[in-house]
Amino acid sequence: MTIQNRNILIVTAHPEQSSFNHALTESAATALRAAGHDVVLSDLYADNFGATSGPGDFTVRPDADRFHHQTEQTNAVRNKSFAPDIAREQAKLAAADLVIFQFPLWWGGPPAILKGWLDRVLAYGFAYVDGYRFDTGLFRGRHAVLSVTTGGTPARFNEEGVYGPIEQLLRPIQRGALEYMGFEVAPPFVCYGAPRMSDEDRQTHLSLWAKQVLELAKLPTDRSLYPADPLSLVEDGAWAKSR
Amino acid sequence: MTIQNRNILIVTAHPEQSSFNHALTESAATALRAAGHDVVLSDLYADNFGATSGPGDFTVRPDADRFHHQTEQTNAVRNKSFAPDIAREQAKLAAADLVIFQFPLWWGGPPAILKGWLDRVLAYGFAYVDGYRFDTGLFRGRHAVLSVTTGGTPARFNEEGVYGPIEQLLRPIQRGALEYMGFEVAPPFVCYGAPRMSDEDRQTHLSLWAKQVLELAKLPTDRSLYPADPLSLVEDGAWAKSR
Repeated sequence: MTIQNRNILIVTAHPEQSSFNHALTESAATALRAAGHDVVLSDLYADNFGATSGPGDFTVRPDADRFHHQTEQTNAVRNKSFAPDIAREQAKLAAADLVIFQFPLWWGGPPAILKGWLDRVLAYGFAYVDGYRFDTGLFRGRHAVLSVTTGGTPARFNEEGVYGPIEQLLRPIQRGALEYMGFEVAPPFVCYGAPRMSDEDRQTHLSLWAKQVLELAKLPTDRSLYPADPLSLVEDGAWAKSR
Repeated sequence: MTIQNRNILIVTAHPEQSSFNHALTESAATALRAAGHDVVLSDLYADNFGATSGPGDFTVRPDADRFHHQTEQTNAVRNKSFAPDIAREQAKLAAADLVIFQFPLWWGGPPAILKGWLDRVLAYGFAYVDGYRFDTGLFRGRHAVLSVTTGGTPARFNEEGVYGPIEQLLRPIQRGALEYMGFEVAPPFVCYGAPRMSDEDRQTHLSLWAKQVLELAKLPTDRSLYPADPLSLVEDGAWAKSR
């Protein structure tokens, strides 16, 4: 029995290429490629990915007087007028069976460059339409996972800690974005206190992470569930009334 | 008895100047100025504020080979070598008695441009040093408040909802950043379902918000609690060992 080949997208966000985050990215990519999977990388810092969502997200503006995200996004899906960097990321996401997000927790959330990736790439009409979410989401049949490093020790992340439980911190991405879109999202892989980890601990975590992603890549997927024309599922302007 | 004059900073993040977010910003600013307060605005979209934290945050690099945030930030505090946009925002924050954040909730968090403001402006050695947090935080004696609009109805924000309780979503900024820095943070002002609010409802919320900020501006403050040299409170490299 041969392992099924998967398309895997790794979105990674750390400014230093020699960082533990990039080592985790590399560990996952190397293991997955060795197992025969196709791995595509979105290295947001290396790509100088623009973080700020606004009029620059689009090459054409239907309403130049008043900027409204979902209106512009709907138009951009219809007319293929997303800015080239967004169109490229959407194409990578559309082709992926498994999406991995690798990032350090800064002020309890993703670095702005990754928040910007969510804000810009996960557009209405591409990532979601109204009435189709969770088990009817556009990306059902696919998998995702968050891999996170923290500066703080685990004690910072309990109910009484500075930040509260890590599950709560990751919930906006894990559930509010990815599960909402239909992804099945595995429990997050968290490396606490990354700056003070021993080299031996780092190696252990790098190996553990490689093993985990190999397991995730074995899960059954079905990209064909993505509809040919998501916007046709909802009537014009339905999002404004139903949400 | 005259009202004590306060320095108030409003950090606002929405790409459309005719948006409800900007109306809320304007309502607060107008009311506060009419009451005799000094209001300074950081309109992140209008200022084209850079969202991505990295080497560009600094005009001088102590270690050009390996980028490490806290090392670079420590150096930048000592040598006044923050990038001009960060230095400007830090000066505004240093002068403020009350800081107001006005933003829409996108994917359960602040727009990337505001997340980037947190990532870049709230630097080690300026916003916090180790061992000084919450009631010993550098910004104790000052006040802050979040004002948020959501696309979703309140039902989206209960325990079973897509996003979970709004308090959990705002906790990273409210507690993990602002209270951690020593700010006393008022309960957030939340306008749910902003896109579908009637004009009458909008007017009600704009007035209510103006009244709330006027009350917040009456609270006693003490900017003199900020230490002359925060880094002198901790020994070199202490942050790396103690966190």
